[in-house]
Amino acid sequence: MLEDASAKGMLAASALIAHGRGEAFDYLLGEVTTATALEATTEAAARLSEAVRPVISINGNVAALAADDLIRCSALLDCPLEINIFYRTPERITALLEHMSERKAAVADSPAPIGWEGDGEQSWAEAVNDVSILGDEPNATIPGLEGPRAKCHREGILDSDVILVPLEDGDRCEALVAMGKDVLVVDLNPLSRSAKMGNVTIVDELTRFCANLLATLITGAPSVNQEWDNLANLKSSLDEIYKNISRTDSSPGS
Amino acid sequence: MLEDASAKGMLAASALIAHGRGEAFDYLLGEVTTATALEATTEAAARLSEAVRPVISINGNVAALAADDLIRCSALLDCPLEINIFYRTPERITALLEHMSERKAAVADSPAPIGWEGDGEQSWAEAVNDVSILGDEPNATIPGLEGPRAKCHREGILDSDVILVPLEDGDRCEALVAMGKDVLVVDLNPLSRSAKMGNVTIVDELTRFCANLLATLITGAPSVNQEWDNLANLKSSLDEIYKNISRTDSSPGS
Repeated sequence: MLEDASAKGMLAASALIAHGRGEAFDYLLGEVTTATALEATTEAAARLSEAVRPVISINGNVAALAADDLIRCSALLDCPLEINIFYRTPERITALLEHMSERKAAVADSPAPIGWEGDGEQSWAEAVNDVSILGDEPNATIPGLEGPRAKCHREGILDSDVILVPLEDGDRCEALVAMGKDVLVVDLNPLSRSAKMGNVTIVDELTRFCANLLATLITGAPSVNQEWDNLANLKSSLDEIYKNISRTDSSPGS
Repeated sequence: MLEDASAKGMLAASALIAHGRGEAFDYLLGEVTTATALEATTEAAARLSEAVRPVISINGNVAALAADDLIRCSALLDCPLEINIFYRTPERITALLEHMSERKAAVADSPAPIGWEGDGEQSWAEAVNDVSILGDEPNATIPGLEGPRAKCHREGILDSDVILVPLEDGDRCEALVAMGKDVLVVDLNPLSRSAKMGNVTIVDELTRFCANLLATLITGAPSVNQEWDNLANLKSSLDEIYKNISRTDSSPGS
């Protein structure tokens, strides 16, 4: 999927390297969603569900790997998706907008997720077609960032209260937190700056996370946990890695 | 360097992802050459120095990152370099041969490494110009592999006794070991199949390893250690990662 996306011009040159870094951490996590990650996913679902103006931020890797499930989540949350990339060029934005439009049409044409009941007034296709995909004409900037990477939409990221930013750069994550937003991060490296900056950090592989988020939104998220301790959750992910390495500590001979 | 190499057609699409996986392990190793890695490097230098027919195998990432120092090592060892890639296409082989020829000319034109004395008969430029770069017309196959990935040169990999294969795929590494060769592997993941298969595995970042190998070859490697315990060395690298994670275990809040 990333190779195709790269060929279509959706990715910055460093995107594949960043993906590889994630793969290594996933390997150390055992390539499974841990109970710790599932707790964070549930908390993210709760915060998105209770948000007044939720938004999902999409970069190249996210669009390549998880467009369909995030479009479904947006339809459920009735919230916009905003294409927001670190290395913004008109060509990449255009390629990403085209890809997301194609995927939106495909998701609208596909069956509703199992368990989806809707509000009885809209069909699944209508709910999907109502999802705004922003990013083409940014009309605001994220304070504290410079140049094209600061650009965003007022009706999307700028005025949001809760923002899901999978695979986000540390600087941008920090700027969003500084704006007072509730920032939900997906990052396989529990030691990364993004992971540490986020209000809720899901240490899981993106497509597994998206499937779990979708399922939680359909069954209904619990209330927001006011006592959420993100650093404790991160430490628990680190403990998983630690355990996996110790378990294999004698395995180079196996 | 990898982005340039990718633009020149030297890399398979998955090469950048593989590099990213390595970066994550290097991060966990503290991005330094450990004492453990240096021991393995010294042992590799000893085996290459005592070899009858040493060879250095070069793939796309290796050519992109470490061509110059490996050309210098080949000049010191008086051994061929062989371009040997997993996803072999004529275009990639051509791009790699061109790159290596350019780098060989540049290394021949540059000063000899500090400490190099040569044998008094050849200039540095002559020693470098004597290095064969193989890979254009493979005339043999590695037993146990199928298709283009099995191709190699008789006067290079096939008839070698000691082979340095940085960043090698597990299958090929296994096939080379099965041929009875002394296989020296460079791999940042101490748990990878290549790392486990190799006779000497250097768990270090490629460019740091190459600089250390060159320095050791110039000062003179010790004798081969007949008692070399590769699995113990690998376990020691794993312990380094383990230690680094435990040290940062409480750091997500920092």
